[in-house]
Amino acid sequence: MAKSKFEYVRYFEQENKCLKNCWIVVRIDGKNFHRFTEIHEFDKPNDINGLNLMSNAAVNVLREFSDINLAFGHSDEFSFVFKKKTNIFNRRSDKILSLVNSIFSSSFVFLWNKYFPNKQLIYAPAFDARIVLYPTDQNLRDYFSWRQADVHVNNLYNTCFWALVLKMGLSPVEAEEKLRGTLSSAKNELLYKNFDINYNNEPEIFRKGTVLVRKCISWEGATKPKSVIIPLHCDIIKDDFWNSHPEILDQSETPLVDKLKLDHYFVCEQKNFKM
Amino acid sequence: MAKSKFEYVRYFEQENKCLKNCWIVVRIDGKNFHRFTEIHEFDKPNDINGLNLMSNAAVNVLREFSDINLAFGHSDEFSFVFKKKTNIFNRRSDKILSLVNSIFSSSFVFLWNKYFPNKQLIYAPAFDARIVLYPTDQNLRDYFSWRQADVHVNNLYNTCFWALVLKMGLSPVEAEEKLRGTLSSAKNELLYKNFDINYNNEPEIFRKGTVLVRKCISWEGATKPKSVIIPLHCDIIKDDFWNSHPEILDQSETPLVDKLKLDHYFVCEQKNFKM
Amino acid sequence: MAKSKFEYVRYFEQENKCLKNCWIVVRIDGKNFHRFTEIHEFDKPNDINGLNLMSNAAVNVLREFSDINLAFGHSDEFSFVFKKKTNIFNRRSDKILSLVNSIFSSSFVFLWNKYFPNKQLIYAPAFDARIVLYPTDQNLRDYFSWRQADVHVNNLYNTCFWALVLKMGLSPVEAEEKLRGTLSSAKNELLYKNFDINYNNEPEIFRKGTVLVRKCISWEGATKPKSVIIPLHCDIIKDDFWNSHPEILDQSETPLVDKLKLDHYFVCEQKNFKM
Amino acid sequence: MAKSKFEYVRYFEQENKCLKNCWIVVRIDGKNFHRFTEIHEFDKPNDINGLNLMSNAAVNVLREFSDINLAFGHSDEFSFVFKKKTNIFNRRSDKILSLVNSIFSSSFVFLWNKYFPNKQLIYAPAFDARIVLYPTDQNLRDYFSWRQADVHVNNLYNTCFWALVLKMGLSPVEAEEKLRGTLSSAKNELLYKNFDINYNNEPEIFRKGTVLVRKCISWEGATKPKSVIIPLHCDIIKDDFWNSHPEILDQSETPLVDKLKLDHYFVCEQKNFKM
Repeated sequence: MAKSKFEYVRYFEQENKCLKNCWIVVRIDGKNFHRFTEIHEFDKPNDINGLNLMSNAAVNVLREFSDINLAFGHSDEFSFVFKKKTNIFNRRSDKILSLVNSIFSSSFVFLWNKYFPNKQLIYAPAFDARIVLYPTDQNLRDYFSWRQADVHVNNLYNTCFWALVLKMGLSPVEAEEKLRGTLSSAKNELLYKNFDINYNNEPEIFRKGTVLVRKCISWEGATKPKSVIIPLHCDIIKDDFWNSHPEILDQSETPLVDKLKLDHYFVCEQKNFKM
Repeated sequence: MAKSKFEYVRYFEQENKCLKNCWIVVRIDGKNFHRFTEIHEFDKPNDINGLNLMSNAAVNVLREFSDINLAFGHSDEFSFVFKKKTNIFNRRSDKILSLVNSIFSSSFVFLWNKYFPNKQLIYAPAFDARIVLYPTDQNLRDYFSWRQADVHVNNLYNTCFWALVLKMGLSPVEAEEKLRGTLSSAKNELLYKNFDINYNNEPEIFRKGTVLVRKCISWEGATKPKSVIIPLHCDIIKDDFWNSHPEILDQSETPLVDKLKLDHYFVCEQKNFKM
Repeated sequence: MAKSKFEYVRYFEQENKCLKNCWIVVRIDGKNFHRFTEIHEFDKPNDINGLNLMSNAAVNVLREFSDINLAFGHSDEFSFVFKKKTNIFNRRSDKILSLVNSIFSSSFVFLWNKYFPNKQLIYAPAFDARIVLYPTDQNLRDYFSWRQADVHVNNLYNTCFWALVLKMGLSPVEAEEKLRGTLSSAKNELLYKNFDINYNNEPEIFRKGTVLVRKCISWEGATKPKSVIIPLHCDIIKDDFWNSHPEILDQSETPLVDKLKLDHYFVCEQKNFKM
Repeated sequence: MAKSKFEYVRYFEQENKCLKNCWIVVRIDGKNFHRFTEIHEFDKPNDINGLNLMSNAAVNVLREFSDINLAFGHSDEFSFVFKKKTNIFNRRSDKILSLVNSIFSSSFVFLWNKYFPNKQLIYAPAFDARIVLYPTDQNLRDYFSWRQADVHVNNLYNTCFWALVLKMGLSPVEAEEKLRGTLSSAKNELLYKNFDINYNNEPEIFRKGTVLVRKCISWEGATKPKSVIIPLHCDIIKDDFWNSHPEILDQSETPLVDKLKLDHYFVCEQKNFKM
């Protein structure tokens, strides 16, 4: 069984490395989630358990890759950014792309029961992924601004659409027609006048999406601080966020924060978790 | 919320398309499966349920992509080949790579209970993936020969190693030393003399790996033949296999086979499955 | 002068290798040759000296790269094909592309006086270049068929256009209008009726372009056959050409031909030429 | 002559675009210039006419591409940098690479007689080219520092080597042995003690290479300032150079300078030059 005779086929592999000193963004997107959420009867316009499941799958990605120090997601998508200076897998694009996506995908299924204890997963969903490089901090911030602006636009629309369908009894086609071409202001008014909804009072997780940041906390009995991942639902377009978390753009050490001030966090090192 | 102001970041995405008229192979590999199989107490050297789970996850990939007409796997790896003429996702490399890997990863977790009804999945495993292009049929055949020759080399070694450890009580280090540099013939003899194992009588799924081919069968009550995926454990290095399944290299229509002659198959179109 | 401090910048270079076992085609194109031929008062529609200069510059490329065994050009473009099995520069795309183009460009200027002894070169022209991979022999043949079909279409048009302008006194705009949308048959008739030109009797170098093939000839006093490059002006779309020069697709040894049967050839090894 | 039947081969071309918002550096290198300079009897260690010819060929590149605002060369290499924001050829890598290299190559031959009026060009030399992206200004400066540090190291060595060979009569092998492993200080001393050469008094063009910058000057009778290219032989490692020419990193408008203060410059728009 002359292995060597066939081994030449290895040299058809082509390496594709991410340009050095650029931020590496991986964005994953649910494949055909319209159908997935329908079959699994997700709440409309937003299913809080579905969103938290997405975030927890993303947390698993951050647990695996310590060089990711920021992630942002909403609906069926999540973006992860690796430090500019990362040398993970020698910056090989295929490796980075496939592993981020695989951890996310398998975690989504693995964690299903935690968020939907009474709902059976009918089939395993899939996510596609792409990799994008950003040379400057401003490009990176603009990327996240783009994604968060998208949350706003989509969620305002969806809030209107589903109110019209679920509360006013319009057909999807009628709801779509009614909303076509309307400005934000008109949508806000429609919600207020017809459904007594003040859009700005809607939960921030729906309006802003979920940001994951990495911090350290001290731990009773632990000899050294532990790394944790914190979900936030805040604006990431303005300077505030970036000034409050300077370690993200600085690529500096993960800062220590006061555990008592945290509502909610995920510990990085779980027993048996580390692959 | 000026979406347009940020949208320029889209144009940093770079398209990477697979050269036309080449076979597109995607190979997935388990990440750190040494540890995964240890924690989940897989049988050594081969866990039949683990192998069948891998194959079923691979079947789900074939269910999704009708342009894959051959897959081959063993241990914690699986290779899929798209027809040379496929135009799936416009041959965009990232899309193909990430979706094949995502479906495999999420299916592995989703199907766990089917193959390990009495064993809890402790954490979600990850798989990496790479994409390789082969311009000719001979290159493609050599690729699969390379992978199957690898099964032979690894499985013979592992069969010896675990016999020495589990049956003879050697430490892993001792077993490794004993096998270092030995030829195939010596390993065969070691198995026969010490453990009464005739290697050639070991199950073919262990010695040959698993091949997935696509066929059609006629179906009672169905108006047209249905596509099925058939797992085989046969030699794919010699001409026999390729002569028996000419549609693979021809890229011709999936042939109709007699359902009664099949031991085992997976139906492609499952209710609620299609994404 | 700490060289090492800066040397990290080397690692920003990205290697781009041509997929193995594919034909590597480099096509060069004159940049803005409309203007170049106008300023240098080239004959219209075809300048025989200009065409021969192009071919001789292409010959210099073949002299340098023994792995190119076919080239084809017309007007201000030339295509070169490297053997599928070449390992030149480790198949690095940038190296191959830039050197083929550089030799062609510098040779064009160097050889100017040989073909235009009484005409001064007013400025140095430029050529762009692209690299394209073809996995199969059929794809490669179709590439050359595409280029030669282009010669036919363009040369028939140009022959009509310049006859109308130079012999009938039409303005370029009028000539263009007269030809717009006409079929080949109408163009042939126009030439015949108005200008007594039977298009099929036009010189083959104008109608077919120039093919360069590599052969060996025996040489008086030489101990071994010498490599020569032969310009042909023949059809390369039909099978004849490929059957007569089987070494091109076979990638076999350069065949020996009878020197006496050759009208014209270029010897490969020139004194002082080899770089 | 069914053109359309073959035209599918166009779609095998693969676009490779330079990542946006990165500096695009093209570096060209003489192919086998050791031999070229020997055959053409260049002065050793430096031939002032050869260096000026290289610079003038580089000037022609800058004349063609207004988005190049800095170039640096020495010996048989030259580097060109396109503005980060350039959109030339839609940032297609092949186009940029091949045209820069082609203009340089054809200009080198075209300009030969201007710098070597009494020396015939024996063959057309070739240059290879590569393209490298730098995301930040610091990376770009470090690139040019790397190249200029290289000039220093090489020129000091070559000055010693050729003094030993030409003035002291050592063979090349002896000279090489004598210099192996010596520090800069030892080389400086060797030049001073044996040849009465103070290395720091050697011409700056030899010790520093040639920098090309773009400026504007006002012109008698001209209605608007004209673009010129100025060769400098100065340090580009320290801040001084970059502070004196802030428009390079700023990508701002080409500044107006006083013509009277310039020793030497090349006008950009030459009659008949523009391609």
